[in-house]
Amino acid sequence: MSSKGNVAVIGYGVVGSGTVELFNKNLEAIKKKVGRDCGIKYILDIRDFPESPYKDIIVHDFETVLNDDEIEVVAEVVGGTTFAYDYTKRLLEKGKSVVTSNKALVAAKGAELLRIAREHNCSYLFEASVGGGIPIIRPIYKCLAGNEIQQISGILNGTTNFILTKMIKDSMSFEDALKLAQQLGYAEADPSADVEGDDACRKICILGSLAFGKHIYPSMVHKSGITRITLDDVEYAANAGYVIKLIGSVKKLSDGSLSAIVCPRLVPKSNMLASVDEVYNAISVTGDGVGDVLFYGQGAGKLPTASAVVGDIIDCLKHIHKGLNIFWEDSSLDEKFVVRYKDINASMYVRIKADNAAALKPAVSEMFGKVMYIERENRPDDELAFITPNMVESDIDADLAVLAESAEIASKIRLF
Amino acid sequence: MSSKGNVAVIGYGVVGSGTVELFNKNLEAIKKKVGRDCGIKYILDIRDFPESPYKDIIVHDFETVLNDDEIEVVAEVVGGTTFAYDYTKRLLEKGKSVVTSNKALVAAKGAELLRIAREHNCSYLFEASVGGGIPIIRPIYKCLAGNEIQQISGILNGTTNFILTKMIKDSMSFEDALKLAQQLGYAEADPSADVEGDDACRKICILGSLAFGKHIYPSMVHKSGITRITLDDVEYAANAGYVIKLIGSVKKLSDGSLSAIVCPRLVPKSNMLASVDEVYNAISVTGDGVGDVLFYGQGAGKLPTASAVVGDIIDCLKHIHKGLNIFWEDSSLDEKFVVRYKDINASMYVRIKADNAAALKPAVSEMFGKVMYIERENRPDDELAFITPNMVESDIDADLAVLAESAEIASKIRLF
Repeated sequence: MSSKGNVAVIGYGVVGSGTVELFNKNLEAIKKKVGRDCGIKYILDIRDFPESPYKDIIVHDFETVLNDDEIEVVAEVVGGTTFAYDYTKRLLEKGKSVVTSNKALVAAKGAELLRIAREHNCSYLFEASVGGGIPIIRPIYKCLAGNEIQQISGILNGTTNFILTKMIKDSMSFEDALKLAQQLGYAEADPSADVEGDDACRKICILGSLAFGKHIYPSMVHKSGITRITLDDVEYAANAGYVIKLIGSVKKLSDGSLSAIVCPRLVPKSNMLASVDEVYNAISVTGDGVGDVLFYGQGAGKLPTASAVVGDIIDCLKHIHKGLNIFWEDSSLDEKFVVRYKDINASMYVRIKADNAAALKPAVSEMFGKVMYIERENRPDDELAFITPNMVESDIDADLAVLAESAEIASKIRLF
Repeated sequence: MSSKGNVAVIGYGVVGSGTVELFNKNLEAIKKKVGRDCGIKYILDIRDFPESPYKDIIVHDFETVLNDDEIEVVAEVVGGTTFAYDYTKRLLEKGKSVVTSNKALVAAKGAELLRIAREHNCSYLFEASVGGGIPIIRPIYKCLAGNEIQQISGILNGTTNFILTKMIKDSMSFEDALKLAQQLGYAEADPSADVEGDDACRKICILGSLAFGKHIYPSMVHKSGITRITLDDVEYAANAGYVIKLIGSVKKLSDGSLSAIVCPRLVPKSNMLASVDEVYNAISVTGDGVGDVLFYGQGAGKLPTASAVVGDIIDCLKHIHKGLNIFWEDSSLDEKFVVRYKDINASMYVRIKADNAAALKPAVSEMFGKVMYIERENRPDDELAFITPNMVESDIDADLAVLAESAEIASKIRLF
């Protein structure tokens, strides 16, 4: 393998331009690592970039990339699941390795694309799809390969972590924190994919599929976002020794089935995840050998994400026609290996509203057994907050349904 | 490659027995990952283990392992640099891949052994040599390959981190904390390799060599341990917003040369490394693309270390006769690519003793310029603590030499 390693980049947006920038900046070192000459031959985009130093390698026709036998590796950083899916499939079928930051596509079609890559002796790599530049896919797949993975939990979305940090540290309301995130470019005009948990959901699907060997589709994951978290909840949580974080988690249960949930959780301040602030991400992995390990860094952004894309490009260029063997089985949507979240045990923070709420304590204690009541300065008389024991969630809900006859259930947030 | 992947383990101590235990526990999953049958064929040790379930595969003669053509991968977990060096060299020369947790050997002979592995088309892997089970070698070498690494800093020794945690959180003296560490099995009867910084030094040599491509020998690293840290220092540090941690760091300077230092440092409480307590390790890596990423977990112990060893075994079994291409150049001991630590800028915490020490403030301020004085409850009159501006360390020392004419320099600790 001494021919030049030619690369194409599909999509010249934020991640695409970062990929080209970082690859070319460190090109000499990259050539040494790859062991031969290499370079970016095409950038595919529908737009022209007449001012770009790379204007001469901008192409508009996908067939140019697909049909050039010199192209060994393609970075798909165009996003979405329409063109990206079609392009990726056809490239892999031609034996070209594809690397991507496209979490939506990996979460939706990962098993199929990995199978096609395997059949055509090439690789489909996606280190950038979770945690931006944080090494997490390869560490799970390679470094922790000797472990049975028991659990993966993480702060997987920087936008929501920024908003929650502002709520916790600066007592900013959700709405104001969201506005600030939008002003700073951390949140989109339509922030729903972040604040409703869809983005984190895609990422936990990828991590869970990788760790447990079977495709977890987003529809299998119970998901709730952070839009209903109030500063009252933040304050009660703090008084009980917790911070509220949006956590994606996938866990192997004792019967071998999985739980997969994305939701806000009360995280004990002593847990490392509680110290992860601003737009940072962190992912905790538990294995039967290694115990807990944690990976922390910027979960998004132009160059951090490009770092992961370029790392994957280099790995592909070093292993052309070898295939890097990341793989998981497909699953059908009606399979039951991910259990219904309501059947799983949880401990729940609950805030209720009712006239003279403290008078409900005897009833609450009778329902749930040993609950922990939480106080706060100037607690209004019509409010009561408590943490339930660890119980099957549907039992908690049944009790709360009874409680709802005499009080409004204002908040209900799982403990970590 | 459909023949059985046979493995030998050299050294049946803590890590060796953990390696055998974890490998066999997860054997079915490992076979799927490797893509063929595999198993541990020999355990080499000078001792017999008549009670062990593995007594039938215990062998005493290294030649048995060396000359068995069926052995593809050997885990060298015997430690030290005598037998381990000889064995590793001969195994690699036979084209057998070797994986190890032996930081002393990698720090002393890494470049040579990596060259031999490359020449014989096999691999020498050592994920377990730094950070126990924490994935760090492969993430730096693979995932961050697109980056120019700028700095690596970490808490690399669990024993000293345990001792410092007890000093910081429980106001235990160094001596008492060391005794407790010994009782709990975290420190050896002779604790010098830990508390004097030798262990952390070996690890920063490995990380630095890997990141910067040239062998950094332990003798090139400035090293100081934690034996002279007092509770007074811990208290002053806390009052200024810092905790004291033993930090190994290697950094690329603007002229391309490196600094490599192992020493206690005042770490700002806002830094993630400040939250790393007890026997945990954490390593922060800074790259020009990724920014800062941090890796956290148990830095030692039977199964965590075995996790890394087994991960490397699996990678070797998947890539027999391909070579995994980890590599750095050798260097000669008189080369100057690691600069003299006294020529590097540092900001220094200083504690002095003198009658009516506060009277020395004008003199101190004149020497160093803008210093930050630190108070503590019931500060004795004969004590003064301050933090110098960022200056060339030899200039700080020259000033302190003058100050030493009128005061005792009780402590001097670098800031992170």
